[in-house]
Amino acid sequence: MKKIDHIGIAVKDIEVSNKLFESLLGVSAYKQEEVQNESVLTSFFKNDSCKIELLAAIQEDSVIAEFIEKKGEGIHHIAFEVESIPDELERLKAEGFVVLNEIPKKGADNKLVVFLHPKSTNGVLIELCQSL
Amino acid sequence: MKKIDHIGIAVKDIEVSNKLFESLLGVSAYKQEEVQNESVLTSFFKNDSCKIELLAAIQEDSVIAEFIEKKGEGIHHIAFEVESIPDELERLKAEGFVVLNEIPKKGADNKLVVFLHPKSTNGVLIELCQSL
Repeated sequence: MKKIDHIGIAVKDIEVSNKLFESLLGVSAYKQEEVQNESVLTSFFKNDSCKIELLAAIQEDSVIAEFIEKKGEGIHHIAFEVESIPDELERLKAEGFVVLNEIPKKGADNKLVVFLHPKSTNGVLIELCQSL
Repeated sequence: MKKIDHIGIAVKDIEVSNKLFESLLGVSAYKQEEVQNESVLTSFFKNDSCKIELLAAIQEDSVIAEFIEKKGEGIHHIAFEVESIPDELERLKAEGFVVLNEIPKKGADNKLVVFLHPKSTNGVLIELCQSL
């Protein structure tokens, strides 16, 4: 949990938000990618610190659609890069953190991902991601 | 807007949350600082990407108390390091972004800070910070 890989931001319309973040950050998104098992379209912006990932729902039952319905557009998660998801989960579970999915899922950007439940992390949805 | 300086997280109890983030990140907070004009107590954690700032209200009228009352604990803002707040504000206003405070305020960590209104930034409260 030494390095933040990206900050995920839930948006309604990826094209509109790509332009907005391009104006804000002064750089264009360097890639766009669909994550089918989450029903989301993502786009990525580089930054000297960590990446910014925009996430838009491509189906009504997407977690991002549910998030926006409940909370509106905004920051969705913080993702930490880890070398080994199983090792890090073992450590975090021993510390009392609650894991949302024990079995890593295929996320965007060629990574395996698991999430910690925000109820155990001060309301912050934490993603652990491991490069494939 | 090339580098994220920190991610700000609103918490109810700084001592409880310091322990939580110490367990999560595997490092201790390296400093704690009160920002009187915002009525908040902050603590900072280092990370290879950017800092994490916890913010707890020290008075009921603090913006952090209002935020938690409305949305619960969670991510409050993303702060970008800029060389010149006036230059960056001029650029951002020309792009249509809405500024919350035109006159920079003294923030934590020896910085001047201004905020962009979340309604103009996809629901994300953006801070610009300039080192003093």
